[in-house]
Amino acid sequence: MSNDPLVVFTPSGKRGRFPVGTPILQAARQLGVDLDSVCGGRGICSKCQVTPSYGDFPKHGITVRDGALSDWNAVEQRYDDKRGLPKGRRLGCQAQVQGDVVIDVPPESQVHRQVVRKEAAARDIEMAPATRTYYIAVDEPDMHTPTGDVERIDRALSQQWEIEGATVEPSLLPDLQKVLRKGNWYVTVAVHADHRGGPPRILQIWPGLYEGGLHGLAIDLGSTTIAAHLCDLRTGAVLASSGVMNPQIRFGEDLMSRVSYAMMNPGGDKDMTDAVRTAINGLTQGIATEAGIDTQSIMETVFVCNPVMHHLLLGIDPVELGQAPFALATSDSLTLPAPSLDLTAMNPCAQVYLLPCIAGHVGADAAAVALSEEPGKREDLSLVVDVGTNAEILLGNTTRVLACSSPTGPAFEGAQISSGQRAAPGAIERVEIDPATKEPRFRVIGCDLWSDEDGFAEATKGTGITGICGSGIIEAVAEMRMAGLLDPSGLIGSAEATGTPRCIPEGRTHAYVLHDASDTGGPRITVTQGDIRAIQLAKSALYAGARLLMDEMGVDKVDRVVLAGAFGAHISPKHAMVLGMIPDVPLDHVTSAGNAAGTGARIALCSITARAEIEETVHRITKVETAIEPKFQEHFVAANAIPHATDPFPELRAVVNLPQVSFNTGSDEGGGRRRRRRA
Amino acid sequence: MSNDPLVVFTPSGKRGRFPVGTPILQAARQLGVDLDSVCGGRGICSKCQVTPSYGDFPKHGITVRDGALSDWNAVEQRYDDKRGLPKGRRLGCQAQVQGDVVIDVPPESQVHRQVVRKEAAARDIEMAPATRTYYIAVDEPDMHTPTGDVERIDRALSQQWEIEGATVEPSLLPDLQKVLRKGNWYVTVAVHADHRGGPPRILQIWPGLYEGGLHGLAIDLGSTTIAAHLCDLRTGAVLASSGVMNPQIRFGEDLMSRVSYAMMNPGGDKDMTDAVRTAINGLTQGIATEAGIDTQSIMETVFVCNPVMHHLLLGIDPVELGQAPFALATSDSLTLPAPSLDLTAMNPCAQVYLLPCIAGHVGADAAAVALSEEPGKREDLSLVVDVGTNAEILLGNTTRVLACSSPTGPAFEGAQISSGQRAAPGAIERVEIDPATKEPRFRVIGCDLWSDEDGFAEATKGTGITGICGSGIIEAVAEMRMAGLLDPSGLIGSAEATGTPRCIPEGRTHAYVLHDASDTGGPRITVTQGDIRAIQLAKSALYAGARLLMDEMGVDKVDRVVLAGAFGAHISPKHAMVLGMIPDVPLDHVTSAGNAAGTGARIALCSITARAEIEETVHRITKVETAIEPKFQEHFVAANAIPHATDPFPELRAVVNLPQVSFNTGSDEGGGRRRRRRA
Repeated sequence: MSNDPLVVFTPSGKRGRFPVGTPILQAARQLGVDLDSVCGGRGICSKCQVTPSYGDFPKHGITVRDGALSDWNAVEQRYDDKRGLPKGRRLGCQAQVQGDVVIDVPPESQVHRQVVRKEAAARDIEMAPATRTYYIAVDEPDMHTPTGDVERIDRALSQQWEIEGATVEPSLLPDLQKVLRKGNWYVTVAVHADHRGGPPRILQIWPGLYEGGLHGLAIDLGSTTIAAHLCDLRTGAVLASSGVMNPQIRFGEDLMSRVSYAMMNPGGDKDMTDAVRTAINGLTQGIATEAGIDTQSIMETVFVCNPVMHHLLLGIDPVELGQAPFALATSDSLTLPAPSLDLTAMNPCAQVYLLPCIAGHVGADAAAVALSEEPGKREDLSLVVDVGTNAEILLGNTTRVLACSSPTGPAFEGAQISSGQRAAPGAIERVEIDPATKEPRFRVIGCDLWSDEDGFAEATKGTGITGICGSGIIEAVAEMRMAGLLDPSGLIGSAEATGTPRCIPEGRTHAYVLHDASDTGGPRITVTQGDIRAIQLAKSALYAGARLLMDEMGVDKVDRVVLAGAFGAHISPKHAMVLGMIPDVPLDHVTSAGNAAGTGARIALCSITARAEIEETVHRITKVETAIEPKFQEHFVAANAIPHATDPFPELRAVVNLPQVSFNTGSDEGGGRRRRRRA
Repeated sequence: MSNDPLVVFTPSGKRGRFPVGTPILQAARQLGVDLDSVCGGRGICSKCQVTPSYGDFPKHGITVRDGALSDWNAVEQRYDDKRGLPKGRRLGCQAQVQGDVVIDVPPESQVHRQVVRKEAAARDIEMAPATRTYYIAVDEPDMHTPTGDVERIDRALSQQWEIEGATVEPSLLPDLQKVLRKGNWYVTVAVHADHRGGPPRILQIWPGLYEGGLHGLAIDLGSTTIAAHLCDLRTGAVLASSGVMNPQIRFGEDLMSRVSYAMMNPGGDKDMTDAVRTAINGLTQGIATEAGIDTQSIMETVFVCNPVMHHLLLGIDPVELGQAPFALATSDSLTLPAPSLDLTAMNPCAQVYLLPCIAGHVGADAAAVALSEEPGKREDLSLVVDVGTNAEILLGNTTRVLACSSPTGPAFEGAQISSGQRAAPGAIERVEIDPATKEPRFRVIGCDLWSDEDGFAEATKGTGITGICGSGIIEAVAEMRMAGLLDPSGLIGSAEATGTPRCIPEGRTHAYVLHDASDTGGPRITVTQGDIRAIQLAKSALYAGARLLMDEMGVDKVDRVVLAGAFGAHISPKHAMVLGMIPDVPLDHVTSAGNAAGTGARIALCSITARAEIEETVHRITKVETAIEPKFQEHFVAANAIPHATDPFPELRAVVNLPQVSFNTGSDEGGGRRRRRRA
């Protein structure tokens, strides 16, 4: 092993050793890290901006000290003077390696930006937003019956809209008189009235009739990605959806690494809080620009997130969540002013609503899934699984709803997989292996053709074939099992045993070659024994969580399965069942709910009735703690095998080419208050 | 008139022309301006700090431009580097006159600091503070029935104190878990529950039993002085009282000058807002130090003030208050977080309560007087006069209460008087003139002897006899009238007509020499014809206001008079009646209420019941606008004469030496809920 400094890039996790003096941009290119540059490294385009991180990184086995990069140089200074570099940023073409260093590549410096697959599901929501606008005619002041302008606004709201006892935010007072006079005593006010019955609050006032719109953000704050929907608060329409990577990834890929980071580094929780708030501000600005709206018209924001994200967003050290009894600082829903969370890219009077957490490991994201999927409103027994770095699992019917979370880890998102990558153009997302020939065919993100179809090579020239993402690896493993390449314990057979040269030796085990372009200098993409083990661990955790809830409920099977979450939306239900991720049910009883947490956030954004409902629902949910339940370990071990050796639904093979969203039945047997449209 | 630059000092109003290059400290000394220095002008002690003001000063007929003072020099830089000079400050010994300039002498640079005569009146108040502390035992977290720490605190408050549905301030969340664990699940919380019925709010949390006390400030924010009482929120005890000059004085001595300043200078209102908030922060810090308490224990603050001060405190441009219809931006009471007013010298979760304003010219200070004096709770008809730069006047009984304000100007405070000064040691505060010999005797602040008593010269050696303050000038004018030195129209007679050489010619009129030490280089203190006119204008305005309310009430006389306000507490009721400031009533029906506005603020600080009561009362008060009422002008003109040519209460001459506070009857016929003790 060389003594050259180690350079680790996040979020890709790519790493390598480089001689002192190597520019970061050059290191990135050698490792295939996705770092942009269009000026030839002259420090002009600034597209290669990176953020070095300092401190201890036990996970990478290094400590990054001051001086790990060369000093800020004249080129960077010139760029900063001219156009400004965000704090903490360096130009990758200028900064040179001097010691071990961790380099974060922000989303805007990535050429192939992450496809944050969190589109808004079409859903009709009965609008009852917390903040609405009212156009009012205010009495002019009369010195014979003197009252304040505020008090006459209140009278107008009472007489013209039956809104009683409204208060005005202190920050509006300085401009109030000018606005009233500019509007010639006609004004539009934005009034926030929540479901808790406090006095209505006037958050904004515009002269005359305001027609600029009122907007809200529904934010699904995940461990890996932050996804936002910008909605019109009057109609509920989604005007734009956008996502960024959660920059906390540089402090740890999964939740427990971040909790550990906070434990090991005094003040580390503050760094993570700052990072995520900054990212949310950037996302807010970006989505507003995309939709062409003024950020000042954003008056409401709803967050759904797991408990660790929830605490870090609030500026609370998550250390208590890392050890029994996993005590949440606060679990009920919260309504807060945006500035209290440093959310500066929206109206300063904007109100932030956080859905309640269910338990120390079951967060507001699970509550949002419960709000969106409503298992407690159906007679049949639903298992709702929100798959992410953690899986949130709900099981219930009208009699009872249970919830737990299960630490699946990032394997389902393509991390910890040898050729794994996040879902981005060029990633293999669908796989089929012919049981007879053992030959694979696949599809990559960004191309509608299968790899054995005419024109595939031409169509993928732009993106290349760069790796395999979460849904791809699940299908690959399941297909390998059904093609007889894996035994029930998950062991890959040799070329001799399987009869295909694609099974090659790798150390003391074997790997299956899915794609090999190495003779033309391209990548070779394999599924290794390690990959199989990672997927087995993840699916066992998921299944064990579901099983634990079924035990608690006293049932052996469920009536239907709902796959939710960014990744859940892309899982093939058949392959999930082959793997044993989820209990067996008829295939048409498996529904993909899309980004159910995001949908729940959007429902809460648009409706205070829904806020009241989910707060009530959460109190009735029975929480099951997987971390301390001995049976969880039993189930986990028992779930290691891959149950199905053959295709359980061979008749569907012909139509498997359909996109998975066709499994979304859009059914609505249980409720009716909110109607869904087919996606 | 010389062409030398004009130097105007505030708050004294002293002015003079000085050659270019004159140090400010030297100019101050030549004019007798109270500016400290103990290092001989070497720039070491920094006691001569001053604040130059720039811009247009129509009142002084000058424009102060950049460069009006010599450049910041090396001595000032050295001091600033070593110990720091507040922004905008110069050292008076270093800065030299270069052009017309207005120089503010901050309170800490005055040797004889203003005696802010606003002691707290002793008053028993039934305690019902908005914020109280509660000691609670919180359940430990249990992962089998997971709830947040906040939710278990709420449960403890409910079970142990019957406080339901409390919310926690967002800023407390980050430290909450550590505090709970540090206190081993025993904590003390400060809970704010106001009279409007919103949810109780937890403003602070301490580990274990907190015994550091909970404090509140009652602040009487006047045009001239800012007076504060620091109170124990558990007992109501006044721990310290303190006052500072209102630094807005440099923008204009009276309210209308400040409104004009805001009109003439864009952003001028912001400067005044900043100045007063900074002063309040300094006052808060000072009073906390004096009482030996931690500023973080200040959780409540109540303000009473006139409408212009009210708006400037809130950051509202007062321009609308300077013109009909005198519209207030907001008139009802307000409860605000301290940071929204930049009040940084108290707990960041402290709550600020502003009493309601009654009308565009009748402020929260008048409401506080109404709360303290309760004219609406008595059968007999009370006239309550709060004398300041503006007089707030209330007239009423159980059937009805009327209110107005009257622009008396600053004469009653010793301003606009030739030998006038604010109440400070050395100021003449009591005067008697023998009707036979026309010889005066007087007392000065800081000495208990009359000027004709043995030892007076010795006793006043320290303070000197420096001028005449408000109560002194009133007595002087009344005594002059009773001694036959003035005719009913207020004209001073000549030496021939009056038979005393103390009446000396001055221009085309005469002046009365009250004190003359000019042959030994001391001051000569006279009452000039201009002084008489100034007092006549002020007392006519006051009387006309009272008369207007009596007209509205349909009465010709009142049953009792209450003199309130810092200055009202020091007025001799007899002399006020001689002058015709107030309607004639038997002398024992004149009460001095001391600083009634400050007392009202203190009551509101200690009792949310009182807050609810005054809000209700203010809505029932009939407002009378003096500025547009033609009869006000009639009354004003008619009130010009000085009615009493002889002592109306000669039998009281013998006991007039008693301090005026003996007139405080401490009566409590009307109410009984709050009991008063004799001062």
